[in-house]
Amino acid sequence: MDAPLIAILGAGQLGRMLALAGYPLGLRFRFLDPAPHSPAGQLAELIVAAYDDRAGLERLAAGATVATYEFENVPARATEFLAQRLPVYPPPRALEVAQDRLAEKTCFLDLGIPTPAFAPVDSWDGLLDAAGRIGLPAVLKTRRFGYDGKGQRVLRCADDFAPAWAALGGDPLILEQFVPFDRELSILAVRSTVGQIVCYPLVENHHDHGILRVSIAPAPMLDPETQNQAQEYVRRALERLDYAGVLAIEFFQRGTQLLANEMAPRVHNSGHWTIEGARTSQFENHLRAVLGWPLGDAGARGHCAMLNLIGDLPPAARVLAVPGAHLHVYGKSPRPGRKLGHITLVEPSEADLRARLSALRSEMPSLISFPSHAVM
Amino acid sequence: MDAPLIAILGAGQLGRMLALAGYPLGLRFRFLDPAPHSPAGQLAELIVAAYDDRAGLERLAAGATVATYEFENVPARATEFLAQRLPVYPPPRALEVAQDRLAEKTCFLDLGIPTPAFAPVDSWDGLLDAAGRIGLPAVLKTRRFGYDGKGQRVLRCADDFAPAWAALGGDPLILEQFVPFDRELSILAVRSTVGQIVCYPLVENHHDHGILRVSIAPAPMLDPETQNQAQEYVRRALERLDYAGVLAIEFFQRGTQLLANEMAPRVHNSGHWTIEGARTSQFENHLRAVLGWPLGDAGARGHCAMLNLIGDLPPAARVLAVPGAHLHVYGKSPRPGRKLGHITLVEPSEADLRARLSALRSEMPSLISFPSHAVM
Repeated sequence: MDAPLIAILGAGQLGRMLALAGYPLGLRFRFLDPAPHSPAGQLAELIVAAYDDRAGLERLAAGATVATYEFENVPARATEFLAQRLPVYPPPRALEVAQDRLAEKTCFLDLGIPTPAFAPVDSWDGLLDAAGRIGLPAVLKTRRFGYDGKGQRVLRCADDFAPAWAALGGDPLILEQFVPFDRELSILAVRSTVGQIVCYPLVENHHDHGILRVSIAPAPMLDPETQNQAQEYVRRALERLDYAGVLAIEFFQRGTQLLANEMAPRVHNSGHWTIEGARTSQFENHLRAVLGWPLGDAGARGHCAMLNLIGDLPPAARVLAVPGAHLHVYGKSPRPGRKLGHITLVEPSEADLRARLSALRSEMPSLISFPSHAVM
Repeated sequence: MDAPLIAILGAGQLGRMLALAGYPLGLRFRFLDPAPHSPAGQLAELIVAAYDDRAGLERLAAGATVATYEFENVPARATEFLAQRLPVYPPPRALEVAQDRLAEKTCFLDLGIPTPAFAPVDSWDGLLDAAGRIGLPAVLKTRRFGYDGKGQRVLRCADDFAPAWAALGGDPLILEQFVPFDRELSILAVRSTVGQIVCYPLVENHHDHGILRVSIAPAPMLDPETQNQAQEYVRRALERLDYAGVLAIEFFQRGTQLLANEMAPRVHNSGHWTIEGARTSQFENHLRAVLGWPLGDAGARGHCAMLNLIGDLPPAARVLAVPGAHLHVYGKSPRPGRKLGHITLVEPSEADLRARLSALRSEMPSLISFPSHAVM
């Protein structure tokens, strides 16, 4: 019996970590990515082709057991093309919903998952009208192809409208209420093709200029009711979408309320701590899920922090000199704002984690910048 | 700055697990192995060539940062050839000692590390003479190229001598006292090129027909004095050999005494539990050591069992249905007696571990055979 072959659209760091988690399970991997030196291509077969290149997609699918994707901006028609040839998970429908902020927010609304107020914007007059209903501050966003804070403008006063419209006005837009939140949380859940579901503990996330910098897991001072609420929300989405794989939903927490901001139909940056910090990593569970295998325990093994390494990499020896620091390097060339790797800490208590974070910070102040409240 | 490139002699499962541990550190890998479908070749560059093929070795070395090996029967001249071109760790001298049971036992003796009584055997008369001095039972072994119980005959009475001599007599031999031991233990220690040393806890090993079946780590009912004794012995060997990398020493335990049986100058099967069960795996620490990077904490994260999958593989989904079971498949074709993978369990207490082992055993009785005392 041949080992299952997993076909993956996108060969970035998420694909690389999927392969690293899947090789021990005896899986084989084949990737498709337009970029020739992609992180996953360093350790698996890589087809260099555009996501909508039919010949490339045929080669990706040939002999594969199942297809998945690690990047949510792949054209939905690429996944549909693949779906005519082999099982594709998460289902292409989930990708379509997640690719369009309006469809996504509407889906949340349909499922009874609270979100910030929102309205579609297709014209200058529509923008004024939507802002009148939602109020200020508000955030004008492109409906599609936004990631890491790109394609967004905050509107705080009347003067902000014209520049925001000038920057984004060519695309279908959505205006969203700007929510004064206590913190940002994300939940990662996994559903397998046979319907088994497991949920990771909620994670507290800290962004800077729209890019995730630090995740703390489980989220400190977490009320069990909040965890249950998030699990109930994500379960509704998993079942409605007949989902298989990892699904991430990002929330704003305001008091005891969770407001869904967005979903990602794939393994997620705020789940990287699970490699060392959970009993089963998000990457292994994603693969188990799309193969219909039993899912692994999503419980935490301690108090964890994940710090993204952005733009430049510290010398490995310096990171590894910090006791308990786990280094992950993605094999990408440095570039400002680019996610090049991450560091994970797993400690037996919050106090230990706090101490280790301080040690790491004093060792590498220029490389690891995160807001002081992230150290709790 | 380019990522360090690690050149590795041998592309079996140990090499594969080195690469899986090293990719997250940003390392690159190149392997040389005579077999074309080697486990590590599925996820890294593989040069298919004999170990003494100079052109192959040149290609292996080209541009590499450091060379190491994952198989101790590589010709010492291959490592010496490489050592003229780049740093090679563990040092070729350690490989020479470990390849010859007589040199190995003599080295233990020189370092004050107790061993079973032994004597070289080069002739039939020499065998009779050695047996007269050592007494029966005794074990006649080839001095070189033995592994997994191959090249050994137990001598219990006079009738055993002629068949043993007929089977092994062509090679340089060693006769060793057959020690009635309580259990077999191994210690894995790591020394870096800058002299830092860390030691993993002693592991209890259970063999069947000379092949490791089960390791329990840390060894149950472990007296701290025994751990200290083992650490002192392995430290002497590491320093005498000016060692860098992982070194394994296997002991017979008899009461409070440790008798060294053999050493392996590489990552070791009895250390596979460290992937999930230790704060830093033996594979990551071997790489850190040969690069001169700070070593990671070798402490255990719980009570661990490692079970080898030999000859045939159970269906992955069946293994993963056992809560807490971590599966490792090496990508090799099934063959009787062949190590194809392993399963690791990590539990918070010995009682939990015992319960999980029983569950695994009742789930897969035919595939996982180990002596009942291994479940403590």
